[in-house]
Amino acid sequence: MEKKIAILNGDGIGPEVTAQSIKVLNAIAQEYGHVFHFREALVGADAIEKTGTALPSETIDICLDSDAVLFGAVGHPKYDNDPTAKVRPEQGLFGIRKALGLFANIRPVITYSGLQHLSPFKASHLEGVDLVIFRELTGGIYFGEKYTSEDGNKASDECVYTRPEIERIAHLAFKLAQGRKKKVTLFDKSNVLETSRLWRKVVQEIATQYPDVTAEYMYVDNAAVQVILNPKQFDVILTENMFGDIISDEASVLNGSMGMLPSASVGNGTALFEPIHGTFPKAAGKDIANPIGSILSTALMLEYFGLKEEAQIIRDAIDWTLQHNFVTKDIDPMNFYFTSTIGDLVSEYV
Amino acid sequence: MEKKIAILNGDGIGPEVTAQSIKVLNAIAQEYGHVFHFREALVGADAIEKTGTALPSETIDICLDSDAVLFGAVGHPKYDNDPTAKVRPEQGLFGIRKALGLFANIRPVITYSGLQHLSPFKASHLEGVDLVIFRELTGGIYFGEKYTSEDGNKASDECVYTRPEIERIAHLAFKLAQGRKKKVTLFDKSNVLETSRLWRKVVQEIATQYPDVTAEYMYVDNAAVQVILNPKQFDVILTENMFGDIISDEASVLNGSMGMLPSASVGNGTALFEPIHGTFPKAAGKDIANPIGSILSTALMLEYFGLKEEAQIIRDAIDWTLQHNFVTKDIDPMNFYFTSTIGDLVSEYV
Ligand SMILES: CC(C)[C@H](C(=O)O)[C@@H](O)C(=O)O
Ligand SMILES: CC(C)[C@H](C(=O)O)[C@@H](O)C(=O)O
Repeated sequence: MEKKIAILNGDGIGPEVTAQSIKVLNAIAQEYGHVFHFREALVGADAIEKTGTALPSETIDICLDSDAVLFGAVGHPKYDNDPTAKVRPEQGLFGIRKALGLFANIRPVITYSGLQHLSPFKASHLEGVDLVIFRELTGGIYFGEKYTSEDGNKASDECVYTRPEIERIAHLAFKLAQGRKKKVTLFDKSNVLETSRLWRKVVQEIATQYPDVTAEYMYVDNAAVQVILNPKQFDVILTENMFGDIISDEASVLNGSMGMLPSASVGNGTALFEPIHGTFPKAAGKDIANPIGSILSTALMLEYFGLKEEAQIIRDAIDWTLQHNFVTKDIDPMNFYFTSTIGDLVSEYV
Repeated sequence: MEKKIAILNGDGIGPEVTAQSIKVLNAIAQEYGHVFHFREALVGADAIEKTGTALPSETIDICLDSDAVLFGAVGHPKYDNDPTAKVRPEQGLFGIRKALGLFANIRPVITYSGLQHLSPFKASHLEGVDLVIFRELTGGIYFGEKYTSEDGNKASDECVYTRPEIERIAHLAFKLAQGRKKKVTLFDKSNVLETSRLWRKVVQEIATQYPDVTAEYMYVDNAAVQVILNPKQFDVILTENMFGDIISDEASVLNGSMGMLPSASVGNGTALFEPIHGTFPKAAGKDIANPIGSILSTALMLEYFGLKEEAQIIRDAIDWTLQHNFVTKDIDPMNFYFTSTIGDLVSEYV
């Protein structure tokens, strides 16, 4: 198999974790006789510094011309406390979501018994947690009309959804649920929001096309409780953009480490794969970041390419590193291995 | 002291928990020589059934003519899965928020060592958690313009904020922090939303007027992680309406029981006090609901009236019931006391 993969390192620990994924993909290519063409492109604060914009058009072109994008992370502390900055690293990320039409962000959350000492939760609470969150990614309040008054004393953001935007991601969620525990739970705020009422109405209709899947509905405030109080009740979670941003990060705490979790963002063409963690500026350049979120994202990429066996060998490799305590500093601050060493170990296992 | 208190029982377990609070307030009145005038008024599904609207104008009048409102809960399952219902119980609650100008919802979250067996968190994680959430309550996406297209295939909700709306609640938060651990953390999404950028800008300005208080800023997705991963870092949390709805419910899981937590909603006139739990339809009418959230809400009410000693005796009474395992079914399903018994015990202690 021959595939073109765009590499968007971005900021902070982005480049170093992505480098490990490339190592692993190269090992897969060699072992299974595939050809992966990697092309780097700028995004985020790095791109702002070099080109003045967080998402140069060349980057979009490279992504559109690729089969998949491997994304690092974007963001920089210097923009965070400046609410007036017009150019922002994050524009790179949601610009690319829009440009590639990546309407569904898919985040599996599983727990590893080896990480339970890191978790704030009781061990018994975590066994058997296995859920996947489908977050709508190109609509809602992220992309609606934005406004600030001339005097800067009034601001607004509009949240908009249309039926087709909800239908396409709902179908993906129900289809995935069919191959899993056959349950989809919609998180919304339909007791308050018109957009949520549209979500609930459309999902109720689509649910009838999947009679083998149970559809449940939960208000997002209660959902924020249930996700941590009783996570085993969930199989596939479906929700809109802003709620998905909050709840999927919250759910990642179940895993014990943000550094371990992958995500896939899919649309009609090129798909994008990225760890859920951010730029982690304090760790940048120190070879201490956890590359597993990124490496597991490449497993999702390979699955997306139809390469199931290759994806599985990566997951086996990760399990093996954990079992042998080959872990980064975030997992064991006293006894840790470097980012690059984990990349080497996983590649060798492959 | 003489005070007029409106009683809005609402739906589900609302009436039975509120009844315990009235008992306790009567005991306080007797013991300390105060006079409390109670007047009941309709709200929620109960009001819809009897009058066709979730918030009759008579209810608003009674509330406006009172010093405080004691609120039960509103909501009914029959409206939940009908996204097309035009009259909804919840309109009673946010209608009253708007009518009374209750711009700040204040929710203290503390943990009780006696409840740690109920919590999904490790005991060590919960010791010393003591935070207060200030949620803006009359602005944002709850009250902005709402729209659904004629064909029902497109919907929108507008989130709007103005400077004065942010200033008034920010001042309350900073003032409370001055008497506590001297830290205010703003939760926003200023990397994406114009309204959040306005929040961050205004709060940054107001922070300069409270040099003894540390101001911190956190994106709401990360906040959803931090609130459960490292709750001890927080003192006073400040946030907008929708984020506050989600995060304050999430934070309540730290306590171990939603049934134990009170809230106060304040504005320029009459204030409103309500437990954070909902209508809990399955328990309604069975005398098994936990009345402590409501009773602790009356403690907040007494504090609001300036009656510190009276508020403290209620808290002492609650601690005493917990120490002696006088608890409702949600806390100990095998060995429990009835709602009304807990009300009697707290009243007798007082
Ligand atoms: C960086 C930010 C714009 C982004 C988002 O909110 O979508 C991030 O939090 C994420 O979840 O990928
Ligand atoms: C019932 C509902 C409208 C309400 C809200 O979202 O504000 C409730 O969840 C709350 O937090 O008081």
